Amino acid sequence: MESAKLIHRSDYSYFHPITTRWADNDVYGHINNVVYYSYFDTVANQYLIEFADFNPINASIIGVVVHSNCTYIKAIAYPNKIEAGLTIKKLGKTSVTYGIGIFKKGEKAAYAYGEFVHVFVNRKDNQPTSIPKKINEAFQKIL
Amino acid sequence: MESAKLIHRSDYSYFHPITTRWADNDVYGHINNVVYYSYFDTVANQYLIEFADFNPINASIIGVVVHSNCTYIKAIAYPNKIEAGLTIKKLGKTSVTYGIGIFKKGEKAAYAYGEFVHVFVNRKDNQPTSIPKKINEAFQKIL
Amino acid sequence: MESAKLIHRSDYSYFHPITTRWADNDVYGHINNVVYYSYFDTVANQYLIEFADFNPINASIIGVVVHSNCTYIKAIAYPNKIEAGLTIKKLGKTSVTYGIGIFKKGEKAAYAYGEFVHVFVNRKDNQPTSIPKKINEAFQKIL
Amino acid sequence: MESAKLIHRSDYSYFHPITTRWADNDVYGHINNVVYYSYFDTVANQYLIEFADFNPINASIIGVVVHSNCTYIKAIAYPNKIEAGLTIKKLGKTSVTYGIGIFKKGEKAAYAYGEFVHVFVNRKDNQPTSIPKKINEAFQKIL
Repeated sequence: MESAKLIHRSDYSYFHPITTRWADNDVYGHINNVVYYSYFDTVANQYLIEFADFNPINASIIGVVVHSNCTYIKAIAYPNKIEAGLTIKKLGKTSVTYGIGIFKKGEKAAYAYGEFVHVFVNRKDNQPTSIPKKINEAFQKIL
Repeated sequence: MESAKLIHRSDYSYFHPITTRWADNDVYGHINNVVYYSYFDTVANQYLIEFADFNPINASIIGVVVHSNCTYIKAIAYPNKIEAGLTIKKLGKTSVTYGIGIFKKGEKAAYAYGEFVHVFVNRKDNQPTSIPKKINEAFQKIL
Repeated sequence: MESAKLIHRSDYSYFHPITTRWADNDVYGHINNVVYYSYFDTVANQYLIEFADFNPINASIIGVVVHSNCTYIKAIAYPNKIEAGLTIKKLGKTSVTYGIGIFKKGEKAAYAYGEFVHVFVNRKDNQPTSIPKKINEAFQKIL
Repeated sequence: MESAKLIHRSDYSYFHPITTRWADNDVYGHINNVVYYSYFDTVANQYLIEFADFNPINASIIGVVVHSNCTYIKAIAYPNKIEAGLTIKKLGKTSVTYGIGIFKKGEKAAYAYGEFVHVFVNRKDNQPTSIPKKINEAFQKIL
C-alpha cells in the first residue's frame, strides 16, 4: 500500500468534477465507501468517451472491470463538490490499470485513492482483445 | 397531471448543478427512472442546507418524505451535465410540497419533473411538528 | 390519493422477496425514499422476465417508465426482509400501470405503495408500439 | 492476489442471502462492479447486527472502512439470487479485515471475492479504539 501522504493532485493528469448527492451519505453521515467506486467508474469512462470517442451503448469492444481497490484517508460528506483525478498506472496489450484520486474541489491532498483494472473484450463473446488504437492513444497521453 | 409542455426553466427559482454518473445509466443506456428521485432529494436538501442552515447530522427537526412522484418526458444519459430546478408548490404548517424540474445544462425545457412532500418531525419521536422558522423563511423566498 | 389504510397484502397478486442493504439506509437510519423505486423496478421486471420470457438485454420491444409515484406510510430500515407486491391497475394498448406495495416479510399492511407506468416502445427508434402478446397475457393474469 | 480458482464456498463461515435488483445491472447488462461493494457492506454489518447486537443508529463505537478491494471472476446479472460469504482474515486490536465471497445461490465457486477493513472508532471524535468485547467475540467465531 502506498503511503497516503504521497497522494497529491499532481499525481493525476485528468480531472473530472463530481457533485455529491444526498443518497451518497450513509447512516454515519459520510459518503458511503461504496460510492467512491461509482466515482472511479465515472471518471474513467468519461475520459474514454471524451478523448477516445468511446460509446458504451454500441461499442463492439468494451472494458470490463476485473479488479478494483480503494484506500480511504479522510471522510467526505454531502454536500460537497469533489474532483476525481485520473492517471494510467499500467498499460498492457489487453488491459489497463487506472489510478484514481478523490479530492475536495480546490484541495491538494486526496481524501481517497485507488485503482481499477479494465480488460478489453469483444462485447459479443466476452473474449479479451487488444485495446483499440484510439483508446490506446488516449491512455498514452496520461501514462 | 400538468401538461409536459408547460414545464420550463422559468417555473423554478433555485437551481443546483448535478453531474451524472456511469452507474446512473441502466441496461437501456439511459438514466434509470429511480435516479431522478436522488436528484430530487439532493436539490431540496441542498437548499435547506444552504439557505436555512439545516444540518442533517444533528438537526432535532427533520423532513421525512411521505409522497413523491415523477413524470419522465425525454431520456437523458450519462455523460451529461444537468441542473435540478426547485420551487415550493404548497407550504403548510408541518409540511411542504417541492416542485422539481430536471434540465440539461443550459436548456429551457424539462426532461423530467415531479414533486415530493416533506413532513417535518421531531427526530426523537417522529411526531409531526411546525416547520422551523428559519426553514419556513427559506421556503417563503421561492414560494 | 388512496387511503393508506386500504393498502393490504390482498391487493396484490404477485410477490417478490427483496433483501435490504446497508446502503439503503440514509443518514436518518431508514431506507431512503429513492430506494423504494428500485424495489418497484425490480418486482415489475422480475414478473416480465419470469412470466413473459422478457429479456432486457436483447428484447426489441421494451417498457420505458413515463411516470411513477410512491406514498410512504411507515419507515423500514436495513436489516429487514421485505416483499414487493405487484398488480396491474390499468392496461392499455401500448402502456401498463403497475400497482406496487412494499411489505415487511409476513406482515399484512403495506409500509409504502405506489405506481409506475411503462410505455412499450421499439428499442431501435423509441416509438410506442403495442404491448407484445406474451407480455399482455402475463398482465391479464394479475389484472 | 490469490488465485481465483481457490475461492470456494468452504472458505467462508457465514452466509447471507442477497436478492439482485434491476438497477444493479449497468449498460453492459451485468451487475455493475460498484454494486458488489454494497453486498460486502451488507453482509459484514448484518453479521455485526445479528451476532454482536450492533446497532448502527446509536452505537458509540462504529466501524469505518479504511480499505476495500474486489476481484471479479465471472459476471452475474439481475435477476439472480446470490449469497455473500463472510470470514475474518485478520483481527487486530482496533481493526478487522473481512474476507467476502459472492456466490450464486447453491453454487460452490465464487463469482467475485474481496476484502474490506473496518477500523473501530469512537463515533464522537472519530478516534480509533479497541474493538468492543461483544464484537470481538463474534469475530473470533469465524476467524
